[in-house]
Amino acid sequence: MKGHTIALCGGVGGAKLAFGLTRALAPDDLTIVVNTGDDFIHLGLHVSPDIDTVAYSLSDLADRERGWGLAGETWAFMDSLKRLGGESWFNLGDRDLAMHVERTRRLAAGESLSQVTATLTTALGIAHRVVPMSDESVRTIIQTADGELPFQRYFVGEQCRPVVTGVRFAGAERARPSPAFAAALARSDLAAVIVCPSNPYLSIDPILAVPGVRAGLAGLSAPIVAVSPIVGGRAIKGPAAKLMRELGVEPGSAAVGRHYGGLLDGLVIDETDRADAAELRALALEPLVARSVMKNDEDRFRLARETIAFATELARPAAGSRRVS
Amino acid sequence: MKGHTIALCGGVGGAKLAFGLTRALAPDDLTIVVNTGDDFIHLGLHVSPDIDTVAYSLSDLADRERGWGLAGETWAFMDSLKRLGGESWFNLGDRDLAMHVERTRRLAAGESLSQVTATLTTALGIAHRVVPMSDESVRTIIQTADGELPFQRYFVGEQCRPVVTGVRFAGAERARPSPAFAAALARSDLAAVIVCPSNPYLSIDPILAVPGVRAGLAGLSAPIVAVSPIVGGRAIKGPAAKLMRELGVEPGSAAVGRHYGGLLDGLVIDETDRADAAELRALALEPLVARSVMKNDEDRFRLARETIAFATELARPAAGSRRVS
Repeated sequence: MKGHTIALCGGVGGAKLAFGLTRALAPDDLTIVVNTGDDFIHLGLHVSPDIDTVAYSLSDLADRERGWGLAGETWAFMDSLKRLGGESWFNLGDRDLAMHVERTRRLAAGESLSQVTATLTTALGIAHRVVPMSDESVRTIIQTADGELPFQRYFVGEQCRPVVTGVRFAGAERARPSPAFAAALARSDLAAVIVCPSNPYLSIDPILAVPGVRAGLAGLSAPIVAVSPIVGGRAIKGPAAKLMRELGVEPGSAAVGRHYGGLLDGLVIDETDRADAAELRALALEPLVARSVMKNDEDRFRLARETIAFATELARPAAGSRRVS
Repeated sequence: MKGHTIALCGGVGGAKLAFGLTRALAPDDLTIVVNTGDDFIHLGLHVSPDIDTVAYSLSDLADRERGWGLAGETWAFMDSLKRLGGESWFNLGDRDLAMHVERTRRLAAGESLSQVTATLTTALGIAHRVVPMSDESVRTIIQTADGELPFQRYFVGEQCRPVVTGVRFAGAERARPSPAFAAALARSDLAAVIVCPSNPYLSIDPILAVPGVRAGLAGLSAPIVAVSPIVGGRAIKGPAAKLMRELGVEPGSAAVGRHYGGLLDGLVIDETDRADAAELRALALEPLVARSVMKNDEDRFRLARETIAFATELARPAAGSRRVS
């Protein structure tokens, strides 16, 4: 693909495709914009779970079996903290902890989250741009029948058990796209936006909730394609399908397409969901049927290449004909 | 000994005697007052090196070979922090880190250092009272020919290499003795004050610099005895002897006695320094010759018992005859 690509990304599933994209595109040709709605202050430390998941995936330090955190991680800090009666519902590994301590220290010293993220990802050997969606605080709040829960309390503390009635993004109205995100959106050579297979409600919606982002995307001439995180009516990982049902939506590729409204030009769906292609076309959404479950590096690389090629295809007829949601 | 004992204590050497004292005295009969002049904010965390050394010694979690930190400590956090380009001159072990994180979190939530210290030492299974000298910030500053250095920069960062021209205690003028320290000083049943074999200039002087402490000690009828940290003209550990020479004082038990001015009634000196006894008597300081190098638990326990017995001896004639420095 000639020109620049923006990837919108959440945690684990999105990070896998981001890994593939970094193997397919040169560092100058890709900006990976990461959800920070999951960020929270824990034990006085600024934790950015999705940024760290992406950073660990791209630097190949991630634990692939557990699905989060670092490979070979140790837990001496948590053991000791438990002994001291500290909060132990959110696990922080010994190596992982260095990211949070150093991030917190730099933020306290006046650096922006973008600056801190650039420093930390560079230190991990990542050549590609990994940027927060915003340098301002946006906090995903899960609304349930029993009241509101901060995201990590829902996701980790309650392990997604509460029935979700809605999601809101506290502080979003005062946020701005991070400088690198805004700059990428404004590039004249922007060739594609790829929405990674992350949870649409919990990982991508926070990015879209930052003022200016949705309109900015809608106004692009470059194609926007998403990879569905729902395969065979189930989320590959995480609570997406459960949450869709709780919100009254039948989990499926078509529902993902509808959720993004008119924003997308194309949706990559798994072979399992081949039958959904017609419904997507009826939504004026071009489907690409692919093997979208990424089990190894080859899967990640192949899906990245196919998604890039799909966007390149769509760029030809679709330019200038964007529907605004 | 009947009645209450106060121990004034710095880091490693003092903690060894404090350990012995906790084996000789019941929890209600001992208040261990710890130097906090070494405290500092590192990586955004409140580190209290002497409190932690005492806590680890009393809970028998300390690494006895290395002389600081926890036995079986691991260093994954530091490895990771170095990789991220973080400050690595001060080592924080994975388990040790939990103390700093939990202390910092509780202080930020509004607890006093006394409250935090009580919670953390209790969690480590310590029944005796370990209290900071003050809840206010007092910071030991090392004056050198090349300017001033915060204590840990001198002690750890520069490994005590700079030539010391003086020591000052920033903030001391606004500090007060911690509530438990003040309460212990005011007890009608106070039977003895034991100055542990810690560095007089760097570990005990900060305690004496807290307004009211020196006068409070001078006004006591209970005897005050110190254990000399200098044996055979050398410090058992740390920079005491080097520092004394740099300040123009010949390192020795007599110099330790003189340094504390008229505050002491007795000084425990090592067998090696038996010849100093006469000089101490000339200073109106009762000497006790003992084996004061503590290599194992038996040494700690024996020296604690001998020091307590020594104070008990001194209590008889010395009551009411305190010299005020």
